[in-house]
Amino acid sequence: MQRALPVDRSRFADWYQAVVRDADMAETSPVRGAMVIKPWGWGVWEQIQAELDRRIKATGHENCYFPMFIPLSFIAREAEHVEGFAKEMAVVTHHRLKTIDGKLQPDPAAKLEEPLIVRPTSETIIGDAFSRWIKSHRDLPMLLNQWANVVRWEMRPRLFLRTTEFLWQEGHTAHAGAEDAMEETRRMLEVYRVFAEEVLAMPVIAGEKPENERFPGAVNTWSIEAMMQDGKALQAGTSHFLGTHFAEAQNIRFQDDSGGMEFCNTTSWGVSTRLIGGVIMTHGDDDGLRLPPAIAPRQVVVVPMLRDKPEDADVLKFCEALVADLSKEHVFGQQLRAFLDTKKIKSAEKRWNWVRRGAPIIIEIGPRDAASGQVTYMRRDALRDGDKVKSIAKPRQDFLEGVVQLLAEIQAGLYAEAKARLDGNIKSGVTDWAGVEDYFAGDEETFKGWLRVSWSRPAGAELDAIDTRLKALKLTIRNAPLDQPREFAPCLFTGMPGVEEILIGRAY
Amino acid sequence: MQRALPVDRSRFADWYQAVVRDADMAETSPVRGAMVIKPWGWGVWEQIQAELDRRIKATGHENCYFPMFIPLSFIAREAEHVEGFAKEMAVVTHHRLKTIDGKLQPDPAAKLEEPLIVRPTSETIIGDAFSRWIKSHRDLPMLLNQWANVVRWEMRPRLFLRTTEFLWQEGHTAHAGAEDAMEETRRMLEVYRVFAEEVLAMPVIAGEKPENERFPGAVNTWSIEAMMQDGKALQAGTSHFLGTHFAEAQNIRFQDDSGGMEFCNTTSWGVSTRLIGGVIMTHGDDDGLRLPPAIAPRQVVVVPMLRDKPEDADVLKFCEALVADLSKEHVFGQQLRAFLDTKKIKSAEKRWNWVRRGAPIIIEIGPRDAASGQVTYMRRDALRDGDKVKSIAKPRQDFLEGVVQLLAEIQAGLYAEAKARLDGNIKSGVTDWAGVEDYFAGDEETFKGWLRVSWSRPAGAELDAIDTRLKALKLTIRNAPLDQPREFAPCLFTGMPGVEEILIGRAY
Repeated sequence: MQRALPVDRSRFADWYQAVVRDADMAETSPVRGAMVIKPWGWGVWEQIQAELDRRIKATGHENCYFPMFIPLSFIAREAEHVEGFAKEMAVVTHHRLKTIDGKLQPDPAAKLEEPLIVRPTSETIIGDAFSRWIKSHRDLPMLLNQWANVVRWEMRPRLFLRTTEFLWQEGHTAHAGAEDAMEETRRMLEVYRVFAEEVLAMPVIAGEKPENERFPGAVNTWSIEAMMQDGKALQAGTSHFLGTHFAEAQNIRFQDDSGGMEFCNTTSWGVSTRLIGGVIMTHGDDDGLRLPPAIAPRQVVVVPMLRDKPEDADVLKFCEALVADLSKEHVFGQQLRAFLDTKKIKSAEKRWNWVRRGAPIIIEIGPRDAASGQVTYMRRDALRDGDKVKSIAKPRQDFLEGVVQLLAEIQAGLYAEAKARLDGNIKSGVTDWAGVEDYFAGDEETFKGWLRVSWSRPAGAELDAIDTRLKALKLTIRNAPLDQPREFAPCLFTGMPGVEEILIGRAY
Repeated sequence: MQRALPVDRSRFADWYQAVVRDADMAETSPVRGAMVIKPWGWGVWEQIQAELDRRIKATGHENCYFPMFIPLSFIAREAEHVEGFAKEMAVVTHHRLKTIDGKLQPDPAAKLEEPLIVRPTSETIIGDAFSRWIKSHRDLPMLLNQWANVVRWEMRPRLFLRTTEFLWQEGHTAHAGAEDAMEETRRMLEVYRVFAEEVLAMPVIAGEKPENERFPGAVNTWSIEAMMQDGKALQAGTSHFLGTHFAEAQNIRFQDDSGGMEFCNTTSWGVSTRLIGGVIMTHGDDDGLRLPPAIAPRQVVVVPMLRDKPEDADVLKFCEALVADLSKEHVFGQQLRAFLDTKKIKSAEKRWNWVRRGAPIIIEIGPRDAASGQVTYMRRDALRDGDKVKSIAKPRQDFLEGVVQLLAEIQAGLYAEAKARLDGNIKSGVTDWAGVEDYFAGDEETFKGWLRVSWSRPAGAELDAIDTRLKALKLTIRNAPLDQPREFAPCLFTGMPGVEEILIGRAY
């Protein structure tokens, strides 16, 4: 069967690269580890930003913007307080270039007294502002968010999934009490869960990270974990309860009712352009990307079948009127995004471009369609009937009346398909290490799901030892799902009474 | 008279700082030259972004995102081609921190082979992509834009006006012919002009920059220039026709109809967070900021006058219903942005906060208003009657029916006020240097407008000499307005026949 991509999902890593490239999502840049996000990929990010931003604001947060440069001393102070603090950061040391001996180079006379770090995350610089802005309990809670670029040096970059520079939102909040801060942490985890499922059509499991996978400095870290089509987990968002750790390092205090000074409890939470990688690996097929309509930059694409003949004018006129009528519709609370593709390339090339890019509905209009008032379209979520591409013809009015419902159906269908995959590939009932080895045996390319096992929540050295055993099989504990049973099998690792169920799997 | 700010516009620089601070727009950060944009300031930027983005897309451009790090070699190549190339840039030299002798510092083992520059602008990195993406005339025009942060090291930073890191949009386009590229350059200048006037209510004069004020590497640079309340000019946006200069440096070529390879003509154009400084200095008064409704994050703010008494419940209920009804209205093509301020501080403090922040309409609802179904409000554009704050009372229904019109009226009024100032303070008819000295005599704090004078468009050394004379009076040529007369007085500088009129003024 002829597919629109040169490689299928059986070679998943190659397939992923092919989709990113052939769907015009992104490409590598001359700077190692950084990426160029192309218009179609950026369009998806714009949709994600707009919809998530609405939800972040609806939960009472305000956006703001902090400098991307952080003084080294801020980072040093944090490093003193935080075990496991990561150090792969971009360091700015000079503020001028100069031509010396005919070569442009950093000007030694413009060396900074204190190096600056390009933010890997903004707890320190925002905490510094909190310490100035928060005076009394009346200033609390302080609920801020920013959309920003951040840099963490990556030795093994992968487009969208792990890049040196990436884009994200980072929420930072301060509260009077631990309970409020904990509630905030869980609220934003839930915002992420619902967003991933409703908007990205990407089912996730929300849960708490084990101690060894926490954000450095966090008291608790929660995540949402999605299952990719190769069975691997993708951590798609995290929400951290930081207790008073950062407040103590940065002196973030407030005057309580009785006039005493207390440390705030703080939280932080973020999702990034990594979500786009998750969407690709959740919904893509052997013809390319399939975008959930809620985030498709163009939901309905109209391709006029032009042949440099007189009837072209009628075809174009029909298409323009169709796009105008489609644009009057509303779907997912927004104006429907319809697009007429008039680029001067062959119609067949256009079709396959939109198939690869994953436009949810692709309409092809020829002279016969225009003459008979008919719309011929493909559903990207159900592109083929056996080997053949399936085209559906409908009277124009019927199509227009059904298009909003059709987009909702595609959105729901993509979710259902992914949900069935997730639910069908989490295995319970494994109670010993041999069972773990058995489940994950064989080569890494073969699909494996996750295990859901009981444990006694060991900590410290005991947990480290478990981590080492898991890593030998390239496994990690993903999280302890929020949804827990009432009774537990004995701990798979220690044999002690179980207190919690956790998910184990391979991960990105 | 008691004003809401500690300083009035007679000390303009201090006044500006006071507005930025007391209107919660922004503050300086621990990193010299960088700023923290606070939620109210960021809210204004979000409105600017949303509306300008719509206009950039409506003219056929697509958004994308390029890495913020640029290899030094790219910059070096540009520097070879571009005279007057600026070198104040942030240079990244290391990618890791390490604790050495108990001190966290750049790890010498993680020194980059090639330093990276934090983008001061993206011609080089986007040009590199153009050289790969553009193959044939069918790929042209290529019309891209990105919203990004950029860094230019500033020795004398000023919030919004001149900061080391700032936010902007930068458009970059490639075309088959010079004429197309020139048309694009002028089209985007016009987009900026209309945007500034319609949305920011900030009248501007669009025109061409003289040779010595061009963007390095540009064939022609156009700008929009606004007049601040101290008479100084603010360059509020620029649009550059780059000819084939950058295409030659970066090998951006296309195959034409006949199979030959030709260099593209490129353009670039941008506006930045500097616009916010322009809005402040155009519309602010001695009580603080006055925001044009089109960009006010909150257009109508409702302050309930609560007194910890039983009737508070009725007041709140009335206010909530009012905000709900206001939110059903549409103004400037968007949902009206109404806000209920329930923060637990005194009502009077809230009033003055919103006055300083410049919310266009501030409503205060007390028990009597709630009981009688009345709305009592202030117009921020016409806050006072003599010394007193002017409150207007209207039946709720009348207010609701008139609110959209009222916001449009405030928008138009702010524009008219600024337009009268601009038009009334450009002096024509000065024909000799003594006239220039005379017009700009006296201390720099005293209001001076601009001169519109005729010149012969001298170039090279002759222009440099004029530039030096002007600089001695702290003057610059702002631009040669698009709108030119048919006949010209002799050149003020050379006495030769005039060919063009130019604007001369002090500037930010």
